[in-house]
Amino acid sequence: MGVTMVLPLVLVISVFSLAMAGFLARQVLSADTGTPEMRAISDAIREGAEAFLRRQNRTIAMLAVVAAAVIFGFYYANRAIPNIAQMGHGTAFKVTLSFVVGALCSAIAGYIGMFVSIRANIRTAAAARTSLDKALQLALRAGAVSGLTVVSMSLLGVGGLFYLFGGMHDYQHVPLQIVGFGFGASFVALFAQLGGGIYTKAADVGADLVGKVEAGIPEDDPRNPAVIADLVGDNVGDCAGRGADLFESTAAENIGAMILGIALYPVFGLGGILFPLLARAFGLVATMVGVFSVRCREDEDPMNALNRGYLVTTVLAMVGFAVSVYALLKPVSATIGEVRQGYLLGAGLIGIATAYAFVWITQYYTEYKYRPVRSIAEASRTGPATNIISGLAVGFECTGMPVLVISAALMGSYWCGKMALGDISGAGLYGTAIATMGMLAPCAYILAMDTFGPITDNAGGIIEMSKQPEAIRQKTDRLDAVGNTTKALTKGYAIGSAALAAFLLFRAYLDEVHKITRTEISVDLTRVPVFIGGLLGATLVFVFSSLAIKAVGQAAQVVITEVRRQFKSDPGIMKGTSKPDYARCVDIVTAGALRQMVVPGLLAVMTPIAVGFGFRYLSPYGQVGAESVAALLMVGTITGILMATVMNNGGGAWDNAKKYIESGLFKVDGVVVGKRSEPHKAAVVGDTVGDPFKDTAGPSLHVLIKLLATITLVLAPLFIL
Amino acid sequence: MGVTMVLPLVLVISVFSLAMAGFLARQVLSADTGTPEMRAISDAIREGAEAFLRRQNRTIAMLAVVAAAVIFGFYYANRAIPNIAQMGHGTAFKVTLSFVVGALCSAIAGYIGMFVSIRANIRTAAAARTSLDKALQLALRAGAVSGLTVVSMSLLGVGGLFYLFGGMHDYQHVPLQIVGFGFGASFVALFAQLGGGIYTKAADVGADLVGKVEAGIPEDDPRNPAVIADLVGDNVGDCAGRGADLFESTAAENIGAMILGIALYPVFGLGGILFPLLARAFGLVATMVGVFSVRCREDEDPMNALNRGYLVTTVLAMVGFAVSVYALLKPVSATIGEVRQGYLLGAGLIGIATAYAFVWITQYYTEYKYRPVRSIAEASRTGPATNIISGLAVGFECTGMPVLVISAALMGSYWCGKMALGDISGAGLYGTAIATMGMLAPCAYILAMDTFGPITDNAGGIIEMSKQPEAIRQKTDRLDAVGNTTKALTKGYAIGSAALAAFLLFRAYLDEVHKITRTEISVDLTRVPVFIGGLLGATLVFVFSSLAIKAVGQAAQVVITEVRRQFKSDPGIMKGTSKPDYARCVDIVTAGALRQMVVPGLLAVMTPIAVGFGFRYLSPYGQVGAESVAALLMVGTITGILMATVMNNGGGAWDNAKKYIESGLFKVDGVVVGKRSEPHKAAVVGDTVGDPFKDTAGPSLHVLIKLLATITLVLAPLFIL
Repeated sequence: MGVTMVLPLVLVISVFSLAMAGFLARQVLSADTGTPEMRAISDAIREGAEAFLRRQNRTIAMLAVVAAAVIFGFYYANRAIPNIAQMGHGTAFKVTLSFVVGALCSAIAGYIGMFVSIRANIRTAAAARTSLDKALQLALRAGAVSGLTVVSMSLLGVGGLFYLFGGMHDYQHVPLQIVGFGFGASFVALFAQLGGGIYTKAADVGADLVGKVEAGIPEDDPRNPAVIADLVGDNVGDCAGRGADLFESTAAENIGAMILGIALYPVFGLGGILFPLLARAFGLVATMVGVFSVRCREDEDPMNALNRGYLVTTVLAMVGFAVSVYALLKPVSATIGEVRQGYLLGAGLIGIATAYAFVWITQYYTEYKYRPVRSIAEASRTGPATNIISGLAVGFECTGMPVLVISAALMGSYWCGKMALGDISGAGLYGTAIATMGMLAPCAYILAMDTFGPITDNAGGIIEMSKQPEAIRQKTDRLDAVGNTTKALTKGYAIGSAALAAFLLFRAYLDEVHKITRTEISVDLTRVPVFIGGLLGATLVFVFSSLAIKAVGQAAQVVITEVRRQFKSDPGIMKGTSKPDYARCVDIVTAGALRQMVVPGLLAVMTPIAVGFGFRYLSPYGQVGAESVAALLMVGTITGILMATVMNNGGGAWDNAKKYIESGLFKVDGVVVGKRSEPHKAAVVGDTVGDPFKDTAGPSLHVLIKLLATITLVLAPLFIL
Repeated sequence: MGVTMVLPLVLVISVFSLAMAGFLARQVLSADTGTPEMRAISDAIREGAEAFLRRQNRTIAMLAVVAAAVIFGFYYANRAIPNIAQMGHGTAFKVTLSFVVGALCSAIAGYIGMFVSIRANIRTAAAARTSLDKALQLALRAGAVSGLTVVSMSLLGVGGLFYLFGGMHDYQHVPLQIVGFGFGASFVALFAQLGGGIYTKAADVGADLVGKVEAGIPEDDPRNPAVIADLVGDNVGDCAGRGADLFESTAAENIGAMILGIALYPVFGLGGILFPLLARAFGLVATMVGVFSVRCREDEDPMNALNRGYLVTTVLAMVGFAVSVYALLKPVSATIGEVRQGYLLGAGLIGIATAYAFVWITQYYTEYKYRPVRSIAEASRTGPATNIISGLAVGFECTGMPVLVISAALMGSYWCGKMALGDISGAGLYGTAIATMGMLAPCAYILAMDTFGPITDNAGGIIEMSKQPEAIRQKTDRLDAVGNTTKALTKGYAIGSAALAAFLLFRAYLDEVHKITRTEISVDLTRVPVFIGGLLGATLVFVFSSLAIKAVGQAAQVVITEVRRQFKSDPGIMKGTSKPDYARCVDIVTAGALRQMVVPGLLAVMTPIAVGFGFRYLSPYGQVGAESVAALLMVGTITGILMATVMNNGGGAWDNAKKYIESGLFKVDGVVVGKRSEPHKAAVVGDTVGDPFKDTAGPSLHVLIKLLATITLVLAPLFIL
């Protein structure tokens, strides 16, 4: 395959997969929408979710315009300094345009994911009335709309800008100009994930605390004025937030890998730069086949069906990966010597294996088949305090295995790179980049499974609230349980890929700095300012987590006050004679969540800027802005990965310890201890503590890690005098 | 002052202060021991504490013998390789001897601290029957026995070994041989702090859960079989554990600063190497004066009296510090140029200011006068879940300010070093070393205040259990409250000094590696194995915390089972007609705690060894054992400092949120919400969660940080091929 054909092929596949997403969306939308009661609930959810996203996007748009102006200003004001000047004409404009396009695409990706999911929930519920298979397929295909859109938009964005800015001729500088795309994407994703995450948990905690605890009514009870807000939360947090999150992941990692490819230009030519795009495009094709292959028997565990689809996707993605390796990663001239492509494929396989290992570890720490969750249930016997203590212990513990896996993957793929390319500079690192690409190849399918979660969750809620027969409820319950698993797996996968990609993004940053300064740069922690940069990076993770958690508490307080007010002003609500004002609750959580997302978001954006510029100008240490920021990025990433793992898995383990007790499988001295027992009450406390961990702070930390990488990539030329 | 006089002077001051400790101990022991009832309780505590320490020391001794054999084996087997050979004859023997002496001194320091405190508790209780001033002085002087012993033993050990090994002539290598002393001290301290910390919280949590929750009897009720074990715990955790902890801190930091002094030998000669010892010795003198100056009026807040003593100590220590600077830190020859000693003194003042800032920040985050603790109390209104969430948010938040202070202190003292010495290599770093020494100058007084805490805590318990009149109880309650504050402040101070000293110890390690390899070493996180080292360092902190927390839960389970058994087998216990078997409970916690301390302890010791040797032999990355371990040390330290801060302050804040509600100052809508209210119950849950944080995992992390530093210092020559 000629290298000139790669970009057109990638763009064609992307457009085709967008069309496929459109086809799937039409298929989903044409499905039956059930009874009028079901529609009433679903309409309320849809309106709430759309209202939230509209207002959130307005807030983010304002922040993004300011950010774009600042970027343009920085670049334009410094256009004469050599660092910027050497990047070519119109760099200020190109970087800013990339940022705007990235931000826009990210917002659109989030919107589309939610657009489909808030319409698929009722249709899944309706389909469950006829067959499990139908409901499963519908929910997965709706999820695939989001998965395919996200990945193909990121390919179109990165590939399109690369082409537009003339990357086929000026491969040296264009990747550095389109880093703005990654920054725009992560800028929007950070606020989307924060806002959505705060919304979803504030509504959840608020609804529970007044509803279950104060008023004594069950979960999802239509008398609770916050119940719709709670269902809306699943969509804005899990769909819109996660969509933006994974969009920026795929974008940032593509760009990072392309920048690493520049270093190997003498060996692979443009092939090394375009390889990530082609591998990802083949992953899209594999996902389409995988999604269509999913069928489920009525009596089968739906998870098995999804797993079969995942297997199909993975195998096909691997074939596509091998094709990409052999087509693009070959020497451009005979003088370069042998390239052992088998080892490059090996690095890709290491990536795939890493993905599997992460999925397995996540299951081990969060499913109640295994020791960790059971130990939390066991500890609930002596009350909420011991439940919390053992949950935190599980959370801290579960960082160990993933880190060993990542360490092994980094070392293995580095070794593969060396074996394939010999002593060429950058060989080992390109090996780690290939592993990252391997891990991300089936990304669209994973995202489809992730979006499957909130859709089935909502479908269950609609069935429950519209009082459908028990048999149907059992079907949606089975789907919902699978959805919980897929949501947990995606988080494990996301953090694993973030960890692997982190190194790639560090290196991309350093390559960029190297290109500017033309001296080899090292991030030497033994220098005082570099060490301080690292210290501040780790601290940022802690303080950011604190703000995210506190934001949930504060927004929940607003919900509680409103629900109490409604109960007080209209006693008919509790009697069931008058309908509560759902919309007002939705409105109030929206305003609360949007107010609370600004401070943690700005802290994340401002810290690297402050450190970079601070140390650029502080003289006694020499000019170490770029290095200090690199240390902030690296140590921040290390701490962020660990904290996110603690929060995701700890939260998941608490959740499932509660579910384990509810399931009736938990026994003390041979007697079942179940719902409404003292241990169950203790487990509910643990679950509530875990909620802002796993749905607000944890996922926001994923985005924070990427944001640190992209912001430093964009501003690198300014940190160096 | 001639430089040859420094070491004798330091040794004389150390011996004098040991004698003073003996004098104070005799004074304390000759005091009145109260009524027979009081003696009965105190005897039980004493016996339990001594039995624990005996068994703990036996376990630690076995581990230490193995460690000593391994060290000797490593050094002896490699005696021919250049790294070791260049350290001179008998290095294997000298390093091992240092290790053994350090381990022994650490154990003795812990033992003496506890020996006095378990005898001072009853005498403080008895003194409270006559006057507050008497009780306060007695408790503080007993604390000073521990403070003076610890610091002077560390000076005697380091100074004595330096002299013995011929450091006055062979200044280049001797400091590297006596690093074994620091490792021995931290080896013992790690297990002592882990064992004591697990013991104290297992007994506490166990006693509370069966006593308060199941049997419904109040705290410190003599019917609870675990009540004596609980009181024993305060001594073995806070006195013995903290004594060993601070012993190793002072030892390790002295050695680290001496190694940095070697780099400046051309400027200061031996003066730069001996400066840390002299500054510390003057600090001892200052502490003695400070302790004797404390007087308290009957109607005064005892904290004011302690603060006056602290002020006296600090001012005198500063004078001694200035004398040391001007006497020792001057150029040895006129050709070197000017040394601006004022800036060196300035670095010392930065250290003192840092100590004050840390004490203030700790108060802000842990006292109920301020927002953070109040926000936790406020959150308790909606139950245990929100209490826990807001406590964790406060814990994560409170890392921010300390890190900013430490960053400023590092930069400021680095700048001072540069200003004082100009462009001499190592100038800036010596500035940070001087700041560390400044911060540690009043260390003995701080330690005295710390030991004051458990003594007054126990005195209160004895008064309570022996049913003394209300007026006396009020006095001991006032002292106990002050003791809680001083304990919290010490932890803040300890972590602050650990953070400042960390950099010193990194640098000492790198200087050592540099001396061996004769090439400049950098800890470049952009290299794969170095990054992995950092990742593993951070993970070690998380997994170690998990193990420490879990150990408490498991040891507490043993207590619970035993107390239940006693209640069941002898119903007379609950009626108050028969005495519970306190000794058996003490025995059982002892065995449980000692079993649980081994795994986390060994993990901490083995991880750096595994990384160092692993990367020494793994070929595709080149030989990077020393750098990977350095990254493990540095990133581990950063993460460790942050986690310890989260745990210490979070735990303290939870504790005081409960006390705030109990105090009757907490109001909802103008109505007092106090003991036995729902918010109080929620706050008790938070307090229980915080217990293993602040008394087991947090303090053990302090030691872990130092252990990583000393173990890498000792094994550095072996990590380099």
